[in-house]
Amino acid sequence: MCHVCVINNVKSSMLSRRDFFRKSAAAGIAATAAGAVSARPALATATGKVVDLTHTFDGDFPTFDGKPGILYTENVNFDQSGYQIWELTIFEHSGTHIDAPLHFSKDGTSVAELDPQNLICPLCIIDIKAKAAEDPNAMVEPEDIEAFVSANGEIPEGACVAMNSGWQDKIGEAGYRNDADGNFTFPGFSKAATDSLMEMGVASIGVDTLSLDPGNSADFAVHTSWLPSGRFGIENLANLDALPATGATLFVGAPKHRDGTGGPARIMAMV
Amino acid sequence: MCHVCVINNVKSSMLSRRDFFRKSAAAGIAATAAGAVSARPALATATGKVVDLTHTFDGDFPTFDGKPGILYTENVNFDQSGYQIWELTIFEHSGTHIDAPLHFSKDGTSVAELDPQNLICPLCIIDIKAKAAEDPNAMVEPEDIEAFVSANGEIPEGACVAMNSGWQDKIGEAGYRNDADGNFTFPGFSKAATDSLMEMGVASIGVDTLSLDPGNSADFAVHTSWLPSGRFGIENLANLDALPATGATLFVGAPKHRDGTGGPARIMAMV
Repeated sequence: MCHVCVINNVKSSMLSRRDFFRKSAAAGIAATAAGAVSARPALATATGKVVDLTHTFDGDFPTFDGKPGILYTENVNFDQSGYQIWELTIFEHSGTHIDAPLHFSKDGTSVAELDPQNLICPLCIIDIKAKAAEDPNAMVEPEDIEAFVSANGEIPEGACVAMNSGWQDKIGEAGYRNDADGNFTFPGFSKAATDSLMEMGVASIGVDTLSLDPGNSADFAVHTSWLPSGRFGIENLANLDALPATGATLFVGAPKHRDGTGGPARIMAMV
Repeated sequence: MCHVCVINNVKSSMLSRRDFFRKSAAAGIAATAAGAVSARPALATATGKVVDLTHTFDGDFPTFDGKPGILYTENVNFDQSGYQIWELTIFEHSGTHIDAPLHFSKDGTSVAELDPQNLICPLCIIDIKAKAAEDPNAMVEPEDIEAFVSANGEIPEGACVAMNSGWQDKIGEAGYRNDADGNFTFPGFSKAATDSLMEMGVASIGVDTLSLDPGNSADFAVHTSWLPSGRFGIENLANLDALPATGATLFVGAPKHRDGTGGPARIMAMV
């Protein structure tokens, strides 16, 4: 068949993405029924909505140490060359980003070595907005996990468990990071909670704040236990309010630079 | 119920990820049957295997301009502080990375502004390994698209179409970038091919080489037409041999720094 004929045929009979995925979904169910699902299934049928959980990142985005997390230097100029490239200076733990085990363990797993099978996983969201509104250093505690399980069922092995403290509404305000006296002030996980999640086989945790530990933490108890265990974390998540407590599939677009302790990442979810 | 009871109950009755996704898949099919699928479905049932299409990236990874694409400077030292952070200098178009429209259009869409609905999409892989073995500047041509469609069916709207030229086997060799005389030498897309893909509603293209255009291109015809049209590209893809020609779902973990012309990305697929 000639080129033009084929192209016209393609255009006239083009499958929509809906048709494509509907057919794939049916094929997937057939595979499930036949017991052909692999040992580490990681994605289910999705209705197709992508929710971006990543903040746009620039030198004004709040950071833990208060310094700009990214700096831009012109590398190639458009007017001179017809294209353009930035040279970026990036401090790894800036923006919506990953904490790899290597961040808090001298010889731990780097961000490039994370098991890809854990980078696409079920997402469970624990909402502590009510208590965070009362206590800006509120923590996800074991009783919040109990309540979540009672309401939503068990947390799947390999899942990511994210805290929704409502803190993303403070982006652009000093209160995202500090109280009126300049003390670190934001919600996080308690070590008792992350110890429980470890026992459940959870692979990663995420927060909508600057740190896995709450702002008033004196010992970084979650960082110093969760990360050295070989698990990873995600900080500065966005848009968790757009997702259900359970049922979404998380995509962790972790960077893959060798020996990285973490880095700005693209985090998305499917619902 | 007490905390310990709940945790033990969770542990004893924990759903495997397989069970979780099997249930979700069934729910998804029900939604499809009820016509509840959204206008932009983007994921189908998956058997659960994640294939990482991203090369590990360091200063030795080949770049178009031959200079290191990433440099590391110690920001926080583990022995001094109990944790560690790198300061990274990254040239945007290095490693497995995105070309956003802004790379080749002065006021085009930045990498942070790409529509997230196009970052999770069907992946179609056109294999030109045989002709690339004969001609190291071989191109995906319209007839390769015709042959792909004849063998695999129509290319879904919104898909990513990737070239598999077998070039990843040359990583670590001078031949990934140059011929014996030092000329740029690697396969890519022809503009006639990408013009056809544009008409089909394809949203992105990917290559397992340093550039969307072949090494001997004199005019960067694909870069200067595809990117300014508002579409994006992915360069230096890995592991395409591990995927079927069609049926995989691509996850494009594009970075999200403001005004970015592109950048190192985490690319994965589900099969």
